[in-house]
Amino acid sequence: MPPTSIAPSPNSVFTPIRFTSSPFPSSLPTPTFLRGQSVLKPRFQTKLVVRATVSMEKETPESERPETFLRESDGQDHAASSASSVRARFEKMIREAQDSVCSAIEAADGGGKFKEDVWSRPGGGGGISRVLQDGAVWEKAGVNVSVVYGVMPPEAYRAAKAAASADQKPGPVPFFAAGVSSVLHPKNPFAPTLHFNYRYFETDAPKDAPGAPRQWWFGGGTDLTPAYIFEEDVKHFHSTQKRACDKFDPTFYPRFKKWCDDYFYIKHRNERRGLGGIFFDDLNDYDQEMLLSFATECANSVIPAYIPIIEKRKDLPFTDQHKAWQQLRRGRYVEFNLVYDRGTTFGLKTGGRIESILVSLPLTARWEYDHKPEEGSEEWKLLDACINPKDWI
Amino acid sequence: MPPTSIAPSPNSVFTPIRFTSSPFPSSLPTPTFLRGQSVLKPRFQTKLVVRATVSMEKETPESERPETFLRESDGQDHAASSASSVRARFEKMIREAQDSVCSAIEAADGGGKFKEDVWSRPGGGGGISRVLQDGAVWEKAGVNVSVVYGVMPPEAYRAAKAAASADQKPGPVPFFAAGVSSVLHPKNPFAPTLHFNYRYFETDAPKDAPGAPRQWWFGGGTDLTPAYIFEEDVKHFHSTQKRACDKFDPTFYPRFKKWCDDYFYIKHRNERRGLGGIFFDDLNDYDQEMLLSFATECANSVIPAYIPIIEKRKDLPFTDQHKAWQQLRRGRYVEFNLVYDRGTTFGLKTGGRIESILVSLPLTARWEYDHKPEEGSEEWKLLDACINPKDWI
Repeated sequence: MPPTSIAPSPNSVFTPIRFTSSPFPSSLPTPTFLRGQSVLKPRFQTKLVVRATVSMEKETPESERPETFLRESDGQDHAASSASSVRARFEKMIREAQDSVCSAIEAADGGGKFKEDVWSRPGGGGGISRVLQDGAVWEKAGVNVSVVYGVMPPEAYRAAKAAASADQKPGPVPFFAAGVSSVLHPKNPFAPTLHFNYRYFETDAPKDAPGAPRQWWFGGGTDLTPAYIFEEDVKHFHSTQKRACDKFDPTFYPRFKKWCDDYFYIKHRNERRGLGGIFFDDLNDYDQEMLLSFATECANSVIPAYIPIIEKRKDLPFTDQHKAWQQLRRGRYVEFNLVYDRGTTFGLKTGGRIESILVSLPLTARWEYDHKPEEGSEEWKLLDACINPKDWI
Repeated sequence: MPPTSIAPSPNSVFTPIRFTSSPFPSSLPTPTFLRGQSVLKPRFQTKLVVRATVSMEKETPESERPETFLRESDGQDHAASSASSVRARFEKMIREAQDSVCSAIEAADGGGKFKEDVWSRPGGGGGISRVLQDGAVWEKAGVNVSVVYGVMPPEAYRAAKAAASADQKPGPVPFFAAGVSSVLHPKNPFAPTLHFNYRYFETDAPKDAPGAPRQWWFGGGTDLTPAYIFEEDVKHFHSTQKRACDKFDPTFYPRFKKWCDDYFYIKHRNERRGLGGIFFDDLNDYDQEMLLSFATECANSVIPAYIPIIEKRKDLPFTDQHKAWQQLRRGRYVEFNLVYDRGTTFGLKTGGRIESILVSLPLTARWEYDHKPEEGSEEWKLLDACINPKDWI
């Protein structure tokens, strides 16, 4: 049976419905039936790929935030009906993260206010997009949460196939996905851009394949994209990520730091988008409660990792040259997001909410022909660190 | 046998080596074995696709323009050794077009000068990239020619398979491709962006499949992307394209006008990049000499179609609001080129000369969250014409 994978958006907005199935048997040791981008990467280049496009229902604007985007049946855990389900707790976590990040951004901005759009989809789920544009500190800051109910083709769910008897054809498998996603682009060229995204994915246990289990995984990350390097800032940022990781597993930070460097890679430039951070996907080979706590810890680390850097850099004087270099790096940000970011590219293809997906793009960007920073300059140092990722701590 | 297609770049720089073969028999009536983008479009979404990536040799900078990028053996026609080959005449035509367009742009700009980069590839071929940046009239103007020698897998060449006997395995088929490509982005928001690209593709007759013919086709187009509509400008532009077409075939203009509207479509926005023009690809079901003349006529129509519009609009006074709208439309230009343009996306994947490929991107662009022009405004009228393509003449 074709191995299959579903890769929710690692960037900008949560667009969790990509189905990619290969007619080749997988030679990859996958602990889960759902394989994320790191595992998929090598396969894309060499193997047959089928894309079963899943288009999304059109979103409906809502005038008020609902208490939850979950379907009623999802409030209680299937295993232990006295406890809240992981779905419910994850939604609560990402909405709290959205609230606290937006509050911290507004406080640090001291001028701009977030504009909120709430929307739902007829079949369940919905989202809250918040955007602060042309503030005092940030030129564009987007913080989105979304909850998606979808149905994936049976070939995407290997466990269902395995559990089905020979004459039984398993039907489509319902799935649930939720995430918080944010990109924050400041005005000052010495103040870095930040991106973070945390997401949870779960399938139902398929009704027509008895014995096939429900499946779940976590993904996400936080990464920093400055135009100029202040080593103390980058150290502070990475240290905060490491501290969050170390509370759970000493292997997490080195592994997820490398994953981040590998993921945010602009292949045609042979350079990374920025100076990295952490990135993980497809995580389910740990205790589910532990991973929920870990994702929560990561989301809670965004403000302490980022805001102190902003406070130090937001008012530094700068020249037109500094601004032009920032704008060139913003161009690279656009290139990465439109060409490589799987969430963005898939969101565009499947009809997700375009304005939420593309809120990750900077307010302004620039492309100069054949621009090469002078060797040894501050611009060159940044570029060098994007080409040759460093260990910052 | 899998049908296969090779789609040279319709945009920015000429990157002619995409091989896409499908294990499904094609149900499409293709007059040529080489199918271009219009035909491929629906297949991408539903069928199995193999990408046999052909990476390009690294380019070598040259200090001087060579008289020709052709291999020595290519100067003479294979059929009539007294006449210049189509390859040679096409190269001559695109280099003359590059010269005359660059001269006209420099004259109209009255300040900026083109910077030239010449490069070659070890296996033959090369190119000339010319870029004028931050001129008086244009913020970025790129005019490139390139000549590529490559080898395509035998399954890309159906005629070779057909001619081969059962126990004979045809080998790789050498091909030749050449093109001129240009994007011109003015500063004034009332002066439109122009793109044009004309290209010629030819295979050798495969040596190990006697009887299999050499194959060839022409592609190209010229299209206009204003931020504001001056109806007389758009009429003048389309009329000039129509006149060029009508000299050859009365069906060309209506057919290639629609093809253009269909090609420059930003699917996730449900709008076109601009107000169109003409676009064609995969043309070989006409006399080869006639199509060479037609491509030449089209290339020669660029200056009379475009420069009079620039002269009228380049000095019009404008406000910050006009400029911001132009920048938003530049953002759409970036979205089209990075997400949809097959030449650009394939060039990025196969390691073409990045700076030549991305010279099509504007110097500056802008993305505002959820920007909607006021109904009935000039901005709205432009957007409306991008959503609902009009007949301008």
